[in-house]
Amino acid sequence: MKTGIQTVGVFGKYKDSSVRDMLGVLRAHLEKRGVKVLLGDTTAPDIEGPRAEFSRDAETGAPIDLAIVVGGDGTMLHVARSLASDSIPVVGVNLGRLGFLTEIPADQAVADLDRILGGDFKVEHRMMLQVDVRAADDTLHSATAFNDVVVSKGEVARLIEIEAYVNGEFVTRTRADGVIVATPTGSTAYALSAGGPILHPLLPAIVLVPICPHRLSNRPIVLEGSSVIRLEPLNAPPRGAHVSIDGHIEFSLSGPEHIEVRRAEQVVKLVHVPSHDHYEALRYKLGWGA
Amino acid sequence: MKTGIQTVGVFGKYKDSSVRDMLGVLRAHLEKRGVKVLLGDTTAPDIEGPRAEFSRDAETGAPIDLAIVVGGDGTMLHVARSLASDSIPVVGVNLGRLGFLTEIPADQAVADLDRILGGDFKVEHRMMLQVDVRAADDTLHSATAFNDVVVSKGEVARLIEIEAYVNGEFVTRTRADGVIVATPTGSTAYALSAGGPILHPLLPAIVLVPICPHRLSNRPIVLEGSSVIRLEPLNAPPRGAHVSIDGHIEFSLSGPEHIEVRRAEQVVKLVHVPSHDHYEALRYKLGWGA
Amino acid sequence: MKTGIQTVGVFGKYKDSSVRDMLGVLRAHLEKRGVKVLLGDTTAPDIEGPRAEFSRDAETGAPIDLAIVVGGDGTMLHVARSLASDSIPVVGVNLGRLGFLTEIPADQAVADLDRILGGDFKVEHRMMLQVDVRAADDTLHSATAFNDVVVSKGEVARLIEIEAYVNGEFVTRTRADGVIVATPTGSTAYALSAGGPILHPLLPAIVLVPICPHRLSNRPIVLEGSSVIRLEPLNAPPRGAHVSIDGHIEFSLSGPEHIEVRRAEQVVKLVHVPSHDHYEALRYKLGWGA
Amino acid sequence: MKTGIQTVGVFGKYKDSSVRDMLGVLRAHLEKRGVKVLLGDTTAPDIEGPRAEFSRDAETGAPIDLAIVVGGDGTMLHVARSLASDSIPVVGVNLGRLGFLTEIPADQAVADLDRILGGDFKVEHRMMLQVDVRAADDTLHSATAFNDVVVSKGEVARLIEIEAYVNGEFVTRTRADGVIVATPTGSTAYALSAGGPILHPLLPAIVLVPICPHRLSNRPIVLEGSSVIRLEPLNAPPRGAHVSIDGHIEFSLSGPEHIEVRRAEQVVKLVHVPSHDHYEALRYKLGWGA
Repeated sequence: MKTGIQTVGVFGKYKDSSVRDMLGVLRAHLEKRGVKVLLGDTTAPDIEGPRAEFSRDAETGAPIDLAIVVGGDGTMLHVARSLASDSIPVVGVNLGRLGFLTEIPADQAVADLDRILGGDFKVEHRMMLQVDVRAADDTLHSATAFNDVVVSKGEVARLIEIEAYVNGEFVTRTRADGVIVATPTGSTAYALSAGGPILHPLLPAIVLVPICPHRLSNRPIVLEGSSVIRLEPLNAPPRGAHVSIDGHIEFSLSGPEHIEVRRAEQVVKLVHVPSHDHYEALRYKLGWGA
Repeated sequence: MKTGIQTVGVFGKYKDSSVRDMLGVLRAHLEKRGVKVLLGDTTAPDIEGPRAEFSRDAETGAPIDLAIVVGGDGTMLHVARSLASDSIPVVGVNLGRLGFLTEIPADQAVADLDRILGGDFKVEHRMMLQVDVRAADDTLHSATAFNDVVVSKGEVARLIEIEAYVNGEFVTRTRADGVIVATPTGSTAYALSAGGPILHPLLPAIVLVPICPHRLSNRPIVLEGSSVIRLEPLNAPPRGAHVSIDGHIEFSLSGPEHIEVRRAEQVVKLVHVPSHDHYEALRYKLGWGA
Repeated sequence: MKTGIQTVGVFGKYKDSSVRDMLGVLRAHLEKRGVKVLLGDTTAPDIEGPRAEFSRDAETGAPIDLAIVVGGDGTMLHVARSLASDSIPVVGVNLGRLGFLTEIPADQAVADLDRILGGDFKVEHRMMLQVDVRAADDTLHSATAFNDVVVSKGEVARLIEIEAYVNGEFVTRTRADGVIVATPTGSTAYALSAGGPILHPLLPAIVLVPICPHRLSNRPIVLEGSSVIRLEPLNAPPRGAHVSIDGHIEFSLSGPEHIEVRRAEQVVKLVHVPSHDHYEALRYKLGWGA
Repeated sequence: MKTGIQTVGVFGKYKDSSVRDMLGVLRAHLEKRGVKVLLGDTTAPDIEGPRAEFSRDAETGAPIDLAIVVGGDGTMLHVARSLASDSIPVVGVNLGRLGFLTEIPADQAVADLDRILGGDFKVEHRMMLQVDVRAADDTLHSATAFNDVVVSKGEVARLIEIEAYVNGEFVTRTRADGVIVATPTGSTAYALSAGGPILHPLLPAIVLVPICPHRLSNRPIVLEGSSVIRLEPLNAPPRGAHVSIDGHIEFSLSGPEHIEVRRAEQVVKLVHVPSHDHYEALRYKLGWGA
């Protein structure tokens, strides 16, 4: 089958030698099959050759057809979020430990890539979140989250008080360490540690999880994917509130601001090979036994 | 506005005097407005007049246009499930304590009924579950659940071991007191006590909640509403397994049987008046404070 | 060092061949060292020789000096409880999987026994519970629990309502699947699955854990070891309540009965060899990683 | 009965008018009974008269015989901790909402004080924790905690990795938002929000509660009161770790430091009047219903 995959970007965590070896293997194999290979901008900088700036050929600006991420779920999270705007499919190769997002084991990478080049794969559309930090009518910050948005107390405060609204309707006022808004993909990350449920990756839903709420009945709520969630920290200044996206991008709130979260227009296009088994990853990652 | 509501069935818990008084008030008011009123078969049997056998006029067999339930969520659960096959809208009047399903307070019942007769209401379609107990290719029992299906250990056993499959894919083997499969409506009932999340009532989802699982990482899973869930108790005989539907209908498993759960074709048509606020019910029932 | 161990009872689960082989090895070794070996009454009945009826020589009636249990925590639980009245120290040998109570791995059993015969061990006193089922002033049933006492709903009921009193003071009324009263030893068994904390084995404490309580703020309570706990099922007949001790001994309540639980006078004397590491068992059993 | 209460310190939150009124009432009543009344240093500074610097007469340096705290649990926590070194009994008066530590309602304050002056009270000794932050052999910071010690991630990090040792034995390595070490008194504060159990106030125990642990089986552990707990943050610099005592006193860790926690030598001497009911406070504060 013709899949039209002519240019592939390969991404890995900078300066990890096992990643570097795997990159070499994949590049050699892909080039032998006539595919143009671009390495990510910051991926193994000592390897020479053309580069990809996330979704595009750094030289020509043309979009790539497929991204391969070598490494863990953290790297995958970062790359996938950046590729979403150009709608590039992405597949993850793990180096030893099966990840939720990196499904291909190293020793099957070449065989699975051949399957993908031959058209033997499925593309799963994973929801992302559009996050806007607003004060009155201004949007101060915007970002896209693949896992989650966390609104939490600043460094000094013990608790934060947050009012949550869904589609304009008041839900509850929570005194807690913070509140997590997670996608189905993010439901197995921080939200799970905070007591949230596991969501099936394709469920059109967003989950709201309070972190150590003062009121014990403040439990996780799973909302429709089309919901618009508005979080209003009540005691922001002078004690401060904090917004974090996928555990990395961070904003500090300094005044009467609120955070609006909704389904993003873009999705992450996750490539699955036929042997993919979502529940096997769950069993492995959560230690559910044989 | 013309709503075409010409016949109304009124249902309440047998022999409760406050229910009986409210039934009288509602009947008088409806008849004054020219609506034919039928009392449920077992509702206030000392009141004379025509009767409704759930969704139908007991005499003519014609379906009613609206059912009014006076009482708590338990009565509502029972009546709504029975009305679903004829697709009759139902509305609940509570006598003092706001319920998840009985949203109209007694003192607003007449005014809210006038609104409904005037067409000023919304109908919400709530998911139900189709439950089939199967041995080999035979279906031994079938039932419809509005809240939940619980597969649990029989009386003597300490734990039951259950394998769960979703759309034919193996999910996990759980040693636990049992497993709950709940609708969004049921997510605030038993499933919540067992550690499950709150699902928005319209989320197209089914939640799987283990009851006191031996393995601490066996957490609730929220699945797509279209999922077919198969539960296989592994140690059924001689220790026994038990299936319970909405806390009432019960089956004992005696051999190599399994339970299949999927979204039912019927829905419960819940009537909401304009003042309805789902989150207010959550705040009230869960004590989330002012 | 002289330990005075002259007679040893060896106990194992009936008809398990790996247990049987280990029993043979241990018996041969002990007899070579001049120790009299008695096999448990129901242990490997095809092996000939003198027998022990739990804590005593079945023939002479003299108490044994040490009990060795070969098998899992379940067997250990049963034997240790039965030995407590005669205050016999007990040590567990596991066959492959480290247990909370069976700390000696099979391949170290002979070497560790030599250490014990040489006096190189510690005895840990583990708390047990005295359980009395009472109606008015009569005691209907009495039992001793090493892990826990569970008061739960009978087969048909969905919930049970239980009032708890501690030292005569009212604590709370709980609507739940049931209530667990556990020793520190039992805190890592069923109580843990129901959301209870891990108690250090020597903490003089009793933990009260509600099972799937309707009220989400009904959390586990850790009480002083000297507490007298009184549980009153409110809706016993006709729906029934159920009392279970260590998951085995069972009573059905049929009338206005209550259950009184307090620290038992007897203790389980658990023998530990020097290499014993309680936290290692926790890490292993709970999957806390390397 | 003669209790020897001749000097009383009265403490309240600065500049709260309802506190100020109650202070006036109590002072007038006590002085009428011949008791010398000192106001706390920062308590209602516009009221003239002699002052107490926590446990001592600010002028004479003589210790007071009793401290009365007017306000909430937060004020009580602060004052009680400061009084512990001089072993001064303390009693709390709440202004409307029953607290765990402030048991006397405003409208019974005068009557209950008379009971106390008449000797009709009990003194409960509540455990405190001694907290030492150490680097190699130096103690960098020391403090006393009445509720809890929290070791948590600094502002930027997502997770902290902490190794816990008890009496020199390795317990576990936890990746989490942090770890709480709480007294029985603190078990109903932050530790409860993080999933910890409720400890009876007189239980000689310390509870270790992980905050949102990555590994779902990392559950709260209740240790003997005599335990020495050592927490070693593994990834302190450059991402930082943070130590907080009773939610107020704070230290930032900047290098290879560890935190040692043990039972403090001082206790808080809590005065209870005969009507005191610890479980009533629990029921009220946790919403356990009538």
